[in-house]
Amino acid sequence: MNNTGVRILALPGLPEVKPGDALVPLLAEALTKLPLQARSGDILVLAHKIVSKAEGRIVPLAAVTPSPLADSWAREWGRDPRVVELALSESRRIVKLDRGVLLAETRHGFVCANAGVDLSNSPEGMATLLPEDPDRSAAAIRAGLKEAAGWDLVVIIADTFGRPWREGQVNVAIGVAGGMPLSDYRGRKDGFGRTLQSTCIARADEIASAAELVMGKRRRVPAALVRGVRLEEGPGDASNLVRPADRDLFR
Amino acid sequence: MNNTGVRILALPGLPEVKPGDALVPLLAEALTKLPLQARSGDILVLAHKIVSKAEGRIVPLAAVTPSPLADSWAREWGRDPRVVELALSESRRIVKLDRGVLLAETRHGFVCANAGVDLSNSPEGMATLLPEDPDRSAAAIRAGLKEAAGWDLVVIIADTFGRPWREGQVNVAIGVAGGMPLSDYRGRKDGFGRTLQSTCIARADEIASAAELVMGKRRRVPAALVRGVRLEEGPGDASNLVRPADRDLFR
Repeated sequence: MNNTGVRILALPGLPEVKPGDALVPLLAEALTKLPLQARSGDILVLAHKIVSKAEGRIVPLAAVTPSPLADSWAREWGRDPRVVELALSESRRIVKLDRGVLLAETRHGFVCANAGVDLSNSPEGMATLLPEDPDRSAAAIRAGLKEAAGWDLVVIIADTFGRPWREGQVNVAIGVAGGMPLSDYRGRKDGFGRTLQSTCIARADEIASAAELVMGKRRRVPAALVRGVRLEEGPGDASNLVRPADRDLFR
Repeated sequence: MNNTGVRILALPGLPEVKPGDALVPLLAEALTKLPLQARSGDILVLAHKIVSKAEGRIVPLAAVTPSPLADSWAREWGRDPRVVELALSESRRIVKLDRGVLLAETRHGFVCANAGVDLSNSPEGMATLLPEDPDRSAAAIRAGLKEAAGWDLVVIIADTFGRPWREGQVNVAIGVAGGMPLSDYRGRKDGFGRTLQSTCIARADEIASAAELVMGKRRRVPAALVRGVRLEEGPGDASNLVRPADRDLFR
C-alpha cells in the first residue's frame, strides 16, 4: 500500500498561451513554482486546450464557411453553423447528428461531442480544435521537459468528454507519453487468489479525471502534477484507449 | 486556486467484511489510522463490495438455479450460468446480450456489465451484487460516521464500469451522500468571461476514479479518503448521475 497516497497539484502561473508559444519552457518554469519539487515518476496532466493553442489549432470563426448541411442543421437546433462545420471537418465518422447533438469520431478515433471542437476557454471569436496528434504532442513535451530539467515525467493530455447512460462529463486522456494507459489485470490474482477475468483499468483516464479536480473550467488552470501513482512501463499511448468497433460490445 | 491540492489516501487496516458486520465502527477506526486526521469536508470513497458484503448482498453460487436462457447462453460463450442468472435477475432492462457480453440496466438505472454482479474479490463460491440502494447505504454510513466521530464527510460508493468507445474500465460513483455529484457550470463564465453552454462535470465520478488510483483491485484496499475537493452543497445523490433515456443522445 502507498502510505503517502496520491497528491494532485494545480500548476500555477501559466500565461494564456498563443499559437507558436513554446510550451516546454513555460511548463518547466511553472513546475519549479510548485510547493513540491517535480521529480521523475510524476505525471503531468495538460488540458488539451493549452496544447492546441500552442500548436495553432485554433481557428477564427469568421474564416469558416459552413456547408449547406452544417448551416441548415445548426440553424434548426440553434447551434453556430461555423462550429458545426468545423466539427464535421474534424470528423472521420458521424455517430449521431440528431436533436442538436453532433457526436463524432475524430480522426484519432475518439468519440465525443463536436469532434472536440469547442468555444469555451477560447479567445473571443475563436474555436479550439483537438491537437493534430495528441500522442505526438505528449511525447514531444515529455522529451522537452526531460532535456530542459532532467525530469522523466509521464505526460497526459486531457479533454472533457460526455458519455452514454451517465450525466455529466469527465476528463479523459487523449494523449499519453511515458507509460501504458491501461493497467491490465487479466490473468493476475485478486485479493482472494482468484484469477481476474476482465479487469483492465483505464488508469490514464482515471488520472485525467483526478487532475480535473484541481484544474477546473473557470480558473484558467490548464495543468496539474500528479504524484504517487505510476503507469505501467511500456510503449503505450492514447491509441490504446480507443476501442476498435469490432471489439466494442458496449456500443 | 487550491495551493495544497488534492490528497488521496488509502484507508489502512480494514478487515475482510462479512455479512452483518457494522461498517461504521470499522471505518471510524480505520480513519483514525490515517497519516492525516480525517476532518469535515473530506470525502470517503468506498468500493461497493465492502458495502455489499456488510449488507449481505453476496450470494452462494451453489444456491442459484439458472434459467434455460441463462444456461444456454452462458454455455455458448463459456460463462458461468449461475452468474448470468444472477445478472439477469438484477437487471431491469437488457441493453445487450451478445457474444458473451451481458450489458444490463440495473434497477438503480446504472448500465454496466453483468448488472454489477461480480466474482472478483468475493469469497470462494460467492458472487457479490450491488448494494440494494447505494445512495441509502452512503447516507447511512455518512450519518453513522457523523454520530460516531463528528466528521461531516461526503460518502461515495464506487464501482468499476466499462464504457463504449474506450478501452478499459474506470471507477464511477453509484452511491453519493453529502453533496451534489454534478458540478453544473452551464450559465457560468469561463476564464474568458464567455458563458459556458454545456459544461457539467460529473465530479463524483471523477473523485471515484481518483480514489481508484490508491485502492487497486489486488490489494484489498476497499476505501480511500480524498481531501481538497468539495462537492457542491445540495440534496444530491447518485440518481443525478443516471441520464434518462429520453435525454441521452449519446446512446
